[in-house]
Amino acid sequence: MPRTKSSTPGAPTIVDVAREAGVSKGLVSLVINDRPGVADATRARVRDAADRLGWRPNLQARRLSTRTTYALGLVLRRDPRIVAADPFYPAFMAGIESVLSPEGRVLVLSVVATAEAEERAYRSFAADRRVDGVFLNDLRHGDDRVGLLAGLGLPGVLVGRLEEPGSLPAVVLDDRPGVTAAVRHLVDLGHRRVAYVGGDPALQHARHRRQAFEEAVAGHGLTPTAVVDTDFTMAGGAAATAALLGGDRPTAIVYANDPMAVAGLGVLQGSGVRVPDAMSVVGFDGTEIGRHTHPALTTIRSDPEQWGAAAARTLLELATSGHAPDVELPPAELVPRRSTGPAPDR
Amino acid sequence: MPRTKSSTPGAPTIVDVAREAGVSKGLVSLVINDRPGVADATRARVRDAADRLGWRPNLQARRLSTRTTYALGLVLRRDPRIVAADPFYPAFMAGIESVLSPEGRVLVLSVVATAEAEERAYRSFAADRRVDGVFLNDLRHGDDRVGLLAGLGLPGVLVGRLEEPGSLPAVVLDDRPGVTAAVRHLVDLGHRRVAYVGGDPALQHARHRRQAFEEAVAGHGLTPTAVVDTDFTMAGGAAATAALLGGDRPTAIVYANDPMAVAGLGVLQGSGVRVPDAMSVVGFDGTEIGRHTHPALTTIRSDPEQWGAAAARTLLELATSGHAPDVELPPAELVPRRSTGPAPDR
Repeated sequence: MPRTKSSTPGAPTIVDVAREAGVSKGLVSLVINDRPGVADATRARVRDAADRLGWRPNLQARRLSTRTTYALGLVLRRDPRIVAADPFYPAFMAGIESVLSPEGRVLVLSVVATAEAEERAYRSFAADRRVDGVFLNDLRHGDDRVGLLAGLGLPGVLVGRLEEPGSLPAVVLDDRPGVTAAVRHLVDLGHRRVAYVGGDPALQHARHRRQAFEEAVAGHGLTPTAVVDTDFTMAGGAAATAALLGGDRPTAIVYANDPMAVAGLGVLQGSGVRVPDAMSVVGFDGTEIGRHTHPALTTIRSDPEQWGAAAARTLLELATSGHAPDVELPPAELVPRRSTGPAPDR
Repeated sequence: MPRTKSSTPGAPTIVDVAREAGVSKGLVSLVINDRPGVADATRARVRDAADRLGWRPNLQARRLSTRTTYALGLVLRRDPRIVAADPFYPAFMAGIESVLSPEGRVLVLSVVATAEAEERAYRSFAADRRVDGVFLNDLRHGDDRVGLLAGLGLPGVLVGRLEEPGSLPAVVLDDRPGVTAAVRHLVDLGHRRVAYVGGDPALQHARHRRQAFEEAVAGHGLTPTAVVDTDFTMAGGAAATAALLGGDRPTAIVYANDPMAVAGLGVLQGSGVRVPDAMSVVGFDGTEIGRHTHPALTTIRSDPEQWGAAAARTLLELATSGHAPDVELPPAELVPRRSTGPAPDR
């Protein structure tokens, strides 16, 4: 039952707003739908009139006339429990909401387990006109979602950069400077035996981060003591840490996210390995928790909240105007706290 | 552009499914829309035929015919950064997604800052027919959202129980047995000086939890050493812990959520207060992180993921059939780990 005006008796209509502002009904519609060609003063007069009368355009009517859904979509192909335990996505989504909320827009979320379900989710978003565009996160090598979206005519923004040059705008945050600074920090502290606990190598950002680590270590004429891939979970970080203690022991460990570093801290302290006296620990993300551990966590801050906000602004621009430029966010940076210190064998 | 069948050449249509199953097109429609009155065997035959042919009903057509949106809504009135730092909501949402995903349904999320924006969000959900129903979380005393939803004709499920008996189904998880067990555990360990770091007293669950603590302590003939309200954040938990160390010092602290307990652990250890030798610490939630701290966190597990899943099932039932019974989940229970031990002055 689409309605073009409020059905409440006595409630203001678009006609009342037009009269109040001294313009035509069509002009009110142009202003409300953010169409170009309206003088700023007129635009302001219409908005003021709408506010004074308490008139709010019916979104369903706006959606029909502007063909927008006032929603953006995020599909996460992850075990729901991993989404729950990793603060990256909550922070990223908080950033998206900080842009959408003030405009009365919403985020449509679908958490799926398999690549097939992921593809179905994007197809449904497009077929059902549920969202104006989607975030392409957790990019993979040769990610076939880019072609899928093109075929569906669904706007998309890359959260990160694909190796292959592509047609979609990318919102990029370069991990490398932060990783390079972390390795330099450890080398300056006398560490020569540095290990890396990485994430899921199927994900491009996990591979990039690991590569940045390996190149930074090589840049100091060293080789990593060990490099372990995990699934990005706390349990994975704990198991990798235990394995590193059992083998050829490093004096410093860099983790690919904060939850794994926190879990590593727990394993080290539980094994009587003092941090940072006997082992230095570096996290990645810069999420809230690292401020409150003891010792406070040295981490590589990537600001997932800013990333989400920038991606949302870019996707809105793309969905509205048909194009949007790439955005390069301030790169990841080292936040030295108390979990790193001089190498024990210095 | 609603389409009643796939436009891909050669793709199966509802007619093909009807022929394959040996039933009428109308009967296929009844099965797909979960209407009553179809024999189980026929239902199974139609579903099998659809699977064999790879036929998937067009959701937009289904939405038009069944007037459902295949979406549920969650409005969070919180600072986006608090949502990001508190693992309760990610875990709760993961539980919702575990029910919605397999059915191709989605969660529509709106994070708002004020009560006014919250009301606007519910009004939009209803006016725009964006969702089939909403979760009413973070219940407040005399919560006026119940009346709002009734006025909007929008189905809603209470996440928790309101003091006033109401018309909406409630999905309830009783905190009290877990809190009572935690206090008994501490008293059994010889603690007589127990403090409580609570959450935001505007929220009903925070008040209930605090009340359960105070009554449990009184049940052992004791009075709390201190009770501090916070905003549920790690920073709030850290500040409250520091204040408790400065005053009439307890030997055990119970926190209203795990992030505050983890932050408290950090403050205690950073101040040279050994846990559990000099201070016992109890969290609340049972989220992943407490398994991985050192010492591992004794906590009161409330299983937000199960809660989300149960709330989603109840809301789907309510939205489909018009009614759903209350659900009483297994109550919160104590999970003793290493952060609690004998009282130092025993």
